Amino acid sequence: MRAAVMPAPNAPIDVRDLPVPPLAQGAVLLETIASEVCGTDVHLWHGRLAGVPYPIVPGHVSVGRIAAFGGSDADRPADLDGKRFQIGDVVTFLDVHGTCGACWYCLVAGQSTRCPKRRVYGITMGMADGPSGGWAEAILLKPGTHLIRLPRGLEPETFIGGGCGAVTAFHAVRRAGVRLGDAVAVLGAGPVGLSAAALASISGADPVVVIGAPADRLAMAGRMGATLALDLDALPHAARRDAVLACTHGRGADVVIEATGVPQAVAEGATLCRDGGVMVVAGHYTDGGDIALNPHAHLNRPHLEVRGCWGSDASHFHGAIRAMARHQGRIPWSDLVTRWYSIEESGAALQAVADRKLLKAGIRPRA
Amino acid sequence: MRAAVMPAPNAPIDVRDLPVPPLAQGAVLLETIASEVCGTDVHLWHGRLAGVPYPIVPGHVSVGRIAAFGGSDADRPADLDGKRFQIGDVVTFLDVHGTCGACWYCLVAGQSTRCPKRRVYGITMGMADGPSGGWAEAILLKPGTHLIRLPRGLEPETFIGGGCGAVTAFHAVRRAGVRLGDAVAVLGAGPVGLSAAALASISGADPVVVIGAPADRLAMAGRMGATLALDLDALPHAARRDAVLACTHGRGADVVIEATGVPQAVAEGATLCRDGGVMVVAGHYTDGGDIALNPHAHLNRPHLEVRGCWGSDASHFHGAIRAMARHQGRIPWSDLVTRWYSIEESGAALQAVADRKLLKAGIRPRA
Amino acid sequence: MRAAVMPAPNAPIDVRDLPVPPLAQGAVLLETIASEVCGTDVHLWHGRLAGVPYPIVPGHVSVGRIAAFGGSDADRPADLDGKRFQIGDVVTFLDVHGTCGACWYCLVAGQSTRCPKRRVYGITMGMADGPSGGWAEAILLKPGTHLIRLPRGLEPETFIGGGCGAVTAFHAVRRAGVRLGDAVAVLGAGPVGLSAAALASISGADPVVVIGAPADRLAMAGRMGATLALDLDALPHAARRDAVLACTHGRGADVVIEATGVPQAVAEGATLCRDGGVMVVAGHYTDGGDIALNPHAHLNRPHLEVRGCWGSDASHFHGAIRAMARHQGRIPWSDLVTRWYSIEESGAALQAVADRKLLKAGIRPRA
Amino acid sequence: MRAAVMPAPNAPIDVRDLPVPPLAQGAVLLETIASEVCGTDVHLWHGRLAGVPYPIVPGHVSVGRIAAFGGSDADRPADLDGKRFQIGDVVTFLDVHGTCGACWYCLVAGQSTRCPKRRVYGITMGMADGPSGGWAEAILLKPGTHLIRLPRGLEPETFIGGGCGAVTAFHAVRRAGVRLGDAVAVLGAGPVGLSAAALASISGADPVVVIGAPADRLAMAGRMGATLALDLDALPHAARRDAVLACTHGRGADVVIEATGVPQAVAEGATLCRDGGVMVVAGHYTDGGDIALNPHAHLNRPHLEVRGCWGSDASHFHGAIRAMARHQGRIPWSDLVTRWYSIEESGAALQAVADRKLLKAGIRPRA
Repeated sequence: MRAAVMPAPNAPIDVRDLPVPPLAQGAVLLETIASEVCGTDVHLWHGRLAGVPYPIVPGHVSVGRIAAFGGSDADRPADLDGKRFQIGDVVTFLDVHGTCGACWYCLVAGQSTRCPKRRVYGITMGMADGPSGGWAEAILLKPGTHLIRLPRGLEPETFIGGGCGAVTAFHAVRRAGVRLGDAVAVLGAGPVGLSAAALASISGADPVVVIGAPADRLAMAGRMGATLALDLDALPHAARRDAVLACTHGRGADVVIEATGVPQAVAEGATLCRDGGVMVVAGHYTDGGDIALNPHAHLNRPHLEVRGCWGSDASHFHGAIRAMARHQGRIPWSDLVTRWYSIEESGAALQAVADRKLLKAGIRPRA
Repeated sequence: MRAAVMPAPNAPIDVRDLPVPPLAQGAVLLETIASEVCGTDVHLWHGRLAGVPYPIVPGHVSVGRIAAFGGSDADRPADLDGKRFQIGDVVTFLDVHGTCGACWYCLVAGQSTRCPKRRVYGITMGMADGPSGGWAEAILLKPGTHLIRLPRGLEPETFIGGGCGAVTAFHAVRRAGVRLGDAVAVLGAGPVGLSAAALASISGADPVVVIGAPADRLAMAGRMGATLALDLDALPHAARRDAVLACTHGRGADVVIEATGVPQAVAEGATLCRDGGVMVVAGHYTDGGDIALNPHAHLNRPHLEVRGCWGSDASHFHGAIRAMARHQGRIPWSDLVTRWYSIEESGAALQAVADRKLLKAGIRPRA
Repeated sequence: MRAAVMPAPNAPIDVRDLPVPPLAQGAVLLETIASEVCGTDVHLWHGRLAGVPYPIVPGHVSVGRIAAFGGSDADRPADLDGKRFQIGDVVTFLDVHGTCGACWYCLVAGQSTRCPKRRVYGITMGMADGPSGGWAEAILLKPGTHLIRLPRGLEPETFIGGGCGAVTAFHAVRRAGVRLGDAVAVLGAGPVGLSAAALASISGADPVVVIGAPADRLAMAGRMGATLALDLDALPHAARRDAVLACTHGRGADVVIEATGVPQAVAEGATLCRDGGVMVVAGHYTDGGDIALNPHAHLNRPHLEVRGCWGSDASHFHGAIRAMARHQGRIPWSDLVTRWYSIEESGAALQAVADRKLLKAGIRPRA
Repeated sequence: MRAAVMPAPNAPIDVRDLPVPPLAQGAVLLETIASEVCGTDVHLWHGRLAGVPYPIVPGHVSVGRIAAFGGSDADRPADLDGKRFQIGDVVTFLDVHGTCGACWYCLVAGQSTRCPKRRVYGITMGMADGPSGGWAEAILLKPGTHLIRLPRGLEPETFIGGGCGAVTAFHAVRRAGVRLGDAVAVLGAGPVGLSAAALASISGADPVVVIGAPADRLAMAGRMGATLALDLDALPHAARRDAVLACTHGRGADVVIEATGVPQAVAEGATLCRDGGVMVVAGHYTDGGDIALNPHAHLNRPHLEVRGCWGSDASHFHGAIRAMARHQGRIPWSDLVTRWYSIEESGAALQAVADRKLLKAGIRPRA
């Protein structure tokens, strides 16, 4: 099988022929249909994530067709309803693997995203785990990986349009507790921010303001459900704040969702949120540096609530997929992929995302 | 009537004879039994609060005996159960007055602490409102002020021991959602912090760690229900963190309550809280400056929740009073008052609190 | 002014000329544009509600044009943003009046719908309060009544299409905590049930099943956002349950909203809800009799949560109006009114609703 | 090993010598120190539970000393902190076993108590699973069973005093969301009810009313933290209600916890709860028949919330154990065991519990 390998931080992507290892009992082999380049892959490439076992095959959210099962029929995994998967099923899988179900976070707190044994396909699982990312003709899924059948009518390319960003956004919207009629401001017009705007809109939020850049992303924000898109490059902070106040009766947003990764956005978010409102910080998967925050003005006096949001679990994955399947007629998730790339082009795809030349790059390993 | 007047920021407290104005319909005149010097009074004195109509009579949480009602018997206010107050009743009153019941915060959000019309006796109500603070022989309560009868068996001095700090702490503990078995860390060993530790303990929290100084406050923390008291002056940050981790299975506190007013405490609190935990910021009633916060390390990755907590409403006042009445045998609220002062001594009392020479100064205007 | 008067339970509606009383300070006189016949009016007529001061002018949710203010300009009421109302403004008003802001429910519990002083225009306010229902050419609003300006673009007839049912439904959907992706089943296809289906749909619920009758209401359910409408008359209980299970992976609905007033629907709802789900009981404003419920099978074992839902407050009124204004292009609220009636025809309108001959009757007093 | 076997419903308990099967990899053998007779064992005996694979060895909550591990050292289970268990450790274990971690309830809803694969030691696990209940000299724990080290200072007999009832009560108190200052009424003075009263008291509830019988249980209620104990046999319903109203300002309890198993108690509970309050139904593990409930009077109008509560999970087990360890000086859990029995006497113990001759029977298999 051919695969795009990231040999080390900052090294060029290398396309290699890798052997397909034998399948252990309960393992599953997928023929990859579609995968994606996500912002995290840029962080991976730039060496900004800890615990990455380079070399790795990137691509943590992917779709494939089941090609083989390890072990006997009785070892085949089943879906949530107990229906066993079949050869040929088109599936995605929870990129999070290995949460132990036995630690305090899994068992007592019910917060498996903080399980210390949690690993992620294509990020903290490397070549030694079997080539496990989606920038490859095949993906080897370990026993116990949670497979999810794509709902009838949801094309792999549409799902990848939302992809990892939609799952993260689903978690952020749920953690924010967005309710019918809430005024929502989203900071960031990348894949997470645009999906957050879409999911807030589907949840009945109104208005839905997106702040970001450049112009083509803002145009997309409108198509994704934003009622107002503010250009970060054209408007100074005060003007952005005025615009948010103008559509929220002068109070600010009930909910702010930060999806930028830029520290300063967190401080800005606090100024856009109404007194007694909620801000979810969902964009900081790597350390972008400190911000200056004023406990009196930003937290205590405005009675603000700030909720960090890390990773996602099966409930967010299923929720995002169902939302995409149900609302794809209204929300153009498939258009979030600016361009599709082959395995051979995956280095160029990564570079384009790193240079912010496109919104989202898809990978079609077998096209 | 004699009253201690704060003429202007940083000016000496001036004891004056003031006329008792005639009582409007629905107004109530209290003969003051006990009041207190609270940290906010120091802020008032130092001119760090906006909207203060100097000159003022300080003392926002007080106890008095009803001496007169304005208007006819039918205008007399009633308690929550509809029972009308009588001459001679010993009462306290909600220091917050004038929330409008008609704005978006009062009526839609249910967050009256953010009502723009909200005013506070002894803080944002001045001489023009009638002498309205408790550092005086009498307090003039405007029509509509919410009176609360002290429960049988709760002495005025004991109530003032908790006083404003206990009400603020009740709000903080409730906003934190402290539950049976939660590990709680309280930053600050002043009146708010000590009452927060007490109320967390009564709520079944375990352990309850208090971090503060000096030693006598830490000794009091133990008597108030803390299971561990850490000396801020003697232990560096790393040692304090180690101590919290050591009694929380290495995870950190489920709930951190900041009650210091020192910005850096908010940053420290984030390092003491477990992943997925909750930190309430309750100590910043004035602007103490900015802190450096890292969105990745302090919010996003640890999936932390930070809740600002501003002011308090009738539910917190009633809750705190009931808790004091019920648990005074277990929690020595009355001992929080280090010394009682007369009206004439109120300037000295204020200076002593400003100098942190004592934990809490009580005012007994008629002693 | 002409008004339709309900003289006593079960007596014919009587159209009378009533004097317009002088306006007290802070009172407001509305020229009625539109009102409605609600199911509660049928209960009123049948004498099934306690505390009704017959004779009354019915019509508790109405729209009018401000014709006069009592008192000086300074007494004019303002909206939530502090903007004073003007002669000619088209407004509705919170039908709930007189919540005291001083009792335990108002002040401590934050549940003003249980305030003992709460009264409702057109229901528990009668002729002695001034003719106060909307089946009249004018409505006399007492000082302190909460007025709400109809948002630009929301026609009075569209608002009345949702009317009281939409407000009640908003409360029910909020009390249920409907979230993006929840499977919702609504029992009842009357004005409350249909608006509940619409508001659940706007909140991202999927599927949204409505169970009711007759066929025209079910057709309307589909237009209001239901993804499945089940005919109560055509399908036995087992078939209805099978249909709900079939679209919820065999588990049942995450949320059931009862909006029928038929006691047996509560028992049916418990069988349609998934284990660990939520059922809101919103349809029982009068006593329709007992049901047999099995604590083991219906509550304990399925880990069910049943939430009674009484009345509504300003937050629900504002929320419903905003949702109608925002989503009227998608949800045909105006079509819920089957026919508009004059004051003279209001007796016939009431009879038609009592006979369930139409979905909703509108009253246009000045048409 | 000697074990008490329940051969079939209603058959006498039979003491047998059973072989100790070989230990599979990851299995653990406990030498039983203490177990208990719980109300569920009476249901088991009377054949009122479905899915019981008779013959069984009863005793689902037990304490033992680790005697042997199956497999190599690497297979030894670890505690929540990752510390591996050792031969000789005194432990209890989560009686719930086999929740799959892969179904919708486990993975999406986060409600593992509704996992269809969930089984319970001593109840739905029988001889074929290895003798697995605590009425035996040894207990064979399957691989993956969640072991919990008894905290230092918590004697096995004290833990068994709370036992299964304390875990169930912890879940009920948590599901009720009991907060500092809540008025709580507990229906039932058996092991669940008494522990619920204790845990509510530890959570700061006040008052805590227990309604039950006979007199010795009510005396125990007072020692467990109840502030008022009402005799079900001596007082008619109206008098019980009056007593609850008298100590709750005429409003009723904020929280009612039903722990009786008697259907009528659910209807009574609805009359003891304040408007807008919460009732948890935790006592109906078998079908005791229907009740008549009035949707208008019991649910809709009082805006009541009724929460069924089924089973418990690891968080409740750990929470209960920690509460017992921490508060055993204040709450006499050990005194809940009226008498200790040997294996040979376990039939008599069961009969005594069935006849309600004692509060709780302990089993000491090796005494």
